[in-house]
Amino acid sequence: MSADQPGNEPLTLVKGHGTRNDFLLVPGADLTTAPPQVANALVVALCDRRGGIGADGLIRVVPPGVEGNGSLWFMDYRNADGSQSQMCGNGARVFVRFLVESGRVTPDDQGGMSIATRAGDHDVRVFEDGTIAVSMGVPSFPLVRALPMVTVDAHTWPATGVLMPNPHAVVFVDDLREAGRLVEAPDVAPDAAFPHGVNVEFVVVDAPGRLRMRVHERGSGETQSCGTGACAAVVAARLRDPDVAPEEWLVDVPGGRLIVTQTATGVELRGPAVLVATVVVADPGSLLA
Amino acid sequence: MSADQPGNEPLTLVKGHGTRNDFLLVPGADLTTAPPQVANALVVALCDRRGGIGADGLIRVVPPGVEGNGSLWFMDYRNADGSQSQMCGNGARVFVRFLVESGRVTPDDQGGMSIATRAGDHDVRVFEDGTIAVSMGVPSFPLVRALPMVTVDAHTWPATGVLMPNPHAVVFVDDLREAGRLVEAPDVAPDAAFPHGVNVEFVVVDAPGRLRMRVHERGSGETQSCGTGACAAVVAARLRDPDVAPEEWLVDVPGGRLIVTQTATGVELRGPAVLVATVVVADPGSLLA
Repeated sequence: MSADQPGNEPLTLVKGHGTRNDFLLVPGADLTTAPPQVANALVVALCDRRGGIGADGLIRVVPPGVEGNGSLWFMDYRNADGSQSQMCGNGARVFVRFLVESGRVTPDDQGGMSIATRAGDHDVRVFEDGTIAVSMGVPSFPLVRALPMVTVDAHTWPATGVLMPNPHAVVFVDDLREAGRLVEAPDVAPDAAFPHGVNVEFVVVDAPGRLRMRVHERGSGETQSCGTGACAAVVAARLRDPDVAPEEWLVDVPGGRLIVTQTATGVELRGPAVLVATVVVADPGSLLA
Repeated sequence: MSADQPGNEPLTLVKGHGTRNDFLLVPGADLTTAPPQVANALVVALCDRRGGIGADGLIRVVPPGVEGNGSLWFMDYRNADGSQSQMCGNGARVFVRFLVESGRVTPDDQGGMSIATRAGDHDVRVFEDGTIAVSMGVPSFPLVRALPMVTVDAHTWPATGVLMPNPHAVVFVDDLREAGRLVEAPDVAPDAAFPHGVNVEFVVVDAPGRLRMRVHERGSGETQSCGTGACAAVVAARLRDPDVAPEEWLVDVPGGRLIVTQTATGVELRGPAVLVATVVVADPGSLLA
């Protein structure tokens, strides 16, 4: 049996969430060794909300110096369907919360620390109020001649394309109900603007520095929160009226409140991160039966 | 602090499912004492699939002789919204699986045992093939002058009303897709037929003794499985053609396969029951913050 196949060893996980975007963490036995490998099929089975435990994604907690890792803790993130993802803003906060609560990582006097992800290293700040901020990089924009157009049912809006670096189409509306039930993925044209699909944000700006949003994530449907989506919404909102737009925005998603700050050096995503439970799967292989 | 409020004591749960209808079991510390009380708000928080652990319901595992209980283990079942329910067929199997695997209950030579629920005592049989059968009682029928009518979008069908004892309206269709996406609750008329709401089953009979179904549960939407719904579907199918209908039926629900047997003494529901994980919530009170 290869290390990539689930064995009969019990698997210990930690479930947590950030603004109701929830994750299963897989630590090593004593947090000094590499966590067990988790085959894609087992990621799917564990993230299954009825047949398994349930989560939006799974994060292996890889200590510095193992698996070719450098001097930072590495967030080995996969989506609920087993596919790899570069980075997940809400997941990064839950990952950091676990590292700090485990006592394995102590932030500096300003709450600062850094983590490694497939999208590179990210600066983090841990706050006394229970929130954690993660640097999310610099936004870029898709190369399109005209604004992308988003259609839901018979309603079409122009959108702002934002890459964080994953693709987003941000639509400004007067009322979040305009997007309807979002049972189906919105249609986004032209296809060439987002060849690998796109997440769609519907945004109401209540005041400079304050917005509310809903998000439809490619492959997942409408979700309670999307960290890069919140960042994209703020980037798009600041472009609309750059003269009066503040750097810091309160962003209300269905799952809670995030704070997004955009400066010349990049975008920072801040929000809560909560550990809920320790989960022991006695026989992981049985979930694949 | 009363015993009914969540304290700071860690709470140990077991997550399991039967045909993807999933449950959190709450055993006592050593399975000889009463399990902790769980306030309604904590049931809701624990069953929350993103902010908590996630389940369709929660079952306190009450040993014989405690809490005014008789000589049987008592299944103290609540729905995910904290409301009490008389009985849950899929949950009863998971409850029995836990009792047997814990070693606290040993079925007799034929796999027989009994459990207590709010709907009275139920006979159970534990099979070698991994399935468990639970007696579900005798069906009855709502007092209505005409057949109830079920409408989804622009499509209306006559239905058979069955009480198991919870209310069901069974609709026979040629194709399960006829019911559409079932995003909204089907309309059932007249209101007087089911004053407390009704679960709606859409059923394709493939052959005598074989049917496939989808179910919309009041308060929950479309679900992967409904034990009493499977029983109601078989009761209704046997009424359609009583001369050729067998007693035993294979019932395929989206979450798997059930076997329903109806005899003169009542209806028996048989199917799989799987324990997935042990879950420890270190600080249950924090979930209510």
